[in-house]
Amino acid sequence: MNISVLGCGRWGTFIAWYINKVGHQVMLWGRENSRNYHSLKENRKNDYLSLPDTIELNNSLETAVSFADTIIISISAQELRSFAKQLHALSGIQGKTVILCMKGIEANSGKRLTQVFSEEVGKHVNVAIWVGPGHVQDFVNDIPNCMVISSENIEVTKEIVNAFNSDLIRFYYGQDLIGNEIGAATKNVMGIAAGMLDGLHYSSLKGSLMARGTREISRLVRAMGGNDITIYGLSHLGDYEATLFSDHSHNRKFGQAYAQGEKFEKLAEGVSTVKALKELSVKYDVELPISSALYEILFEEKDAKETLVNLFLRPVKFEF
Amino acid sequence: MNISVLGCGRWGTFIAWYINKVGHQVMLWGRENSRNYHSLKENRKNDYLSLPDTIELNNSLETAVSFADTIIISISAQELRSFAKQLHALSGIQGKTVILCMKGIEANSGKRLTQVFSEEVGKHVNVAIWVGPGHVQDFVNDIPNCMVISSENIEVTKEIVNAFNSDLIRFYYGQDLIGNEIGAATKNVMGIAAGMLDGLHYSSLKGSLMARGTREISRLVRAMGGNDITIYGLSHLGDYEATLFSDHSHNRKFGQAYAQGEKFEKLAEGVSTVKALKELSVKYDVELPISSALYEILFEEKDAKETLVNLFLRPVKFEF
Repeated sequence: MNISVLGCGRWGTFIAWYINKVGHQVMLWGRENSRNYHSLKENRKNDYLSLPDTIELNNSLETAVSFADTIIISISAQELRSFAKQLHALSGIQGKTVILCMKGIEANSGKRLTQVFSEEVGKHVNVAIWVGPGHVQDFVNDIPNCMVISSENIEVTKEIVNAFNSDLIRFYYGQDLIGNEIGAATKNVMGIAAGMLDGLHYSSLKGSLMARGTREISRLVRAMGGNDITIYGLSHLGDYEATLFSDHSHNRKFGQAYAQGEKFEKLAEGVSTVKALKELSVKYDVELPISSALYEILFEEKDAKETLVNLFLRPVKFEF
Repeated sequence: MNISVLGCGRWGTFIAWYINKVGHQVMLWGRENSRNYHSLKENRKNDYLSLPDTIELNNSLETAVSFADTIIISISAQELRSFAKQLHALSGIQGKTVILCMKGIEANSGKRLTQVFSEEVGKHVNVAIWVGPGHVQDFVNDIPNCMVISSENIEVTKEIVNAFNSDLIRFYYGQDLIGNEIGAATKNVMGIAAGMLDGLHYSSLKGSLMARGTREISRLVRAMGGNDITIYGLSHLGDYEATLFSDHSHNRKFGQAYAQGEKFEKLAEGVSTVKALKELSVKYDVELPISSALYEILFEEKDAKETLVNLFLRPVKFEF
């Protein structure tokens, strides 16, 4: 298959490398003014891997779209809408399959990324997501993991899994797009909370965080029409090791730095998701105590320690 | 209240310290020939804490039982049956409330510890369990956590929670004794699996382990007549931080040493639980893939790496 990967950050570049490794023709696209793109063009490598010569680097979106049967997008979640508008302007996208690889929810609308994408490109594009655990740092060292492909069309899901499956990444069929999308996005929120607990030397409360975090997101998914058990699968709970415990986790590190009053270069994606969850909590009338606590800390200047300790030690007697 | 704590290992001694701290009269019992007992008698401290003078140390089981309204037992799970026989011989136990603080399942019968205990002491003793996350090392440094009290009688549960609750340990009412007991015991099995993954440098598969581990135990609990959501609460998933990730976790360290072919001084409790799960898997006709894989590794000399990699990367396409 001919596959284009749009976005050449850490994850996009890894995906191009992986998809090439499992036997496909790959074009990797980056913005003309992107530092990552220029560095890859010059060196054919980044901090994690070297690109084989068979991967073509290109900065023309039109060329990348027309090259491919299947298009994988790996850009910042909050930039997806404007990027989808650009893609819509290229007629070549119609009828193709697009796989979204980022984890987020549109901050100002609470919309899922497949909704955002379909709103902009229309119904004639098959949209799927690729989520679940795994660090680039591990994959390039041949440490395997399990991930999930999900879409509204099981035939599309199966086709992607069959094309991409390997001993390095074992793909599962996602059967609940709502649950998998919300699960993948919101694990970043729990990652920020975990980082704050680490920063406050309350790491042992991460056990409670896992039990309560999954519960509140499960309630939300059910209210949104998804399956409340999905959250306990790979897209959310299965990604907690990578997000709540790993040194590689950007969201965890962000939360830790925030709680310790340190500067951080870049907001974590989970910050936008906290905003989106505020919308969703109101829209679907679901209480989200952890997400709300993070909203108060991040956007209303509440004290992290006091807010989190209150959250975990408030007198709620029944667990469920 | 007058409380006796039977067993003066790390956890029993902490419990005596904690129960005293929240305002009760405490007697701490240890076996006459126990090294822990003699060391506490001599030094009034162990590696973790110092016992206040108000805690009485005693090695007469009869005295400890007659002293107390409520008795807390913290001994090795597999020794509970013979210990319960001893207690039964002391008529003083009848009509009292007994709280079991260990996490296990009787290895050769697959029976829950409250079942084992009630079989030996009869129906006139209220039996409850105290489970959930928390390291002694953290508690004595004033780092709080959330735990669970569960029994078949909600009034007994409430009474214990009201008597023991504090800012250091926030207790929840458990509403599913089967789920909480099985959950507490089996998290040790997942802890051994996590340690093996750590030892094999596959730590990033601990995300998948969490998603699949909770799922298989949830299926078992449902088959046993419990609530399948209990596993995702404090007694099991809520204890994963302490058991799957912490350096303090004995079960995790055991698994790590085992996978690396190192010697270990003492079998972890989870090893007996793996045996018990073999019984329960047959009895309730439930597939327990992770537990079975550990059984093969620990008792049938299967290779840990091959068995675990096969388990996580075998071609199962649907998650649930």
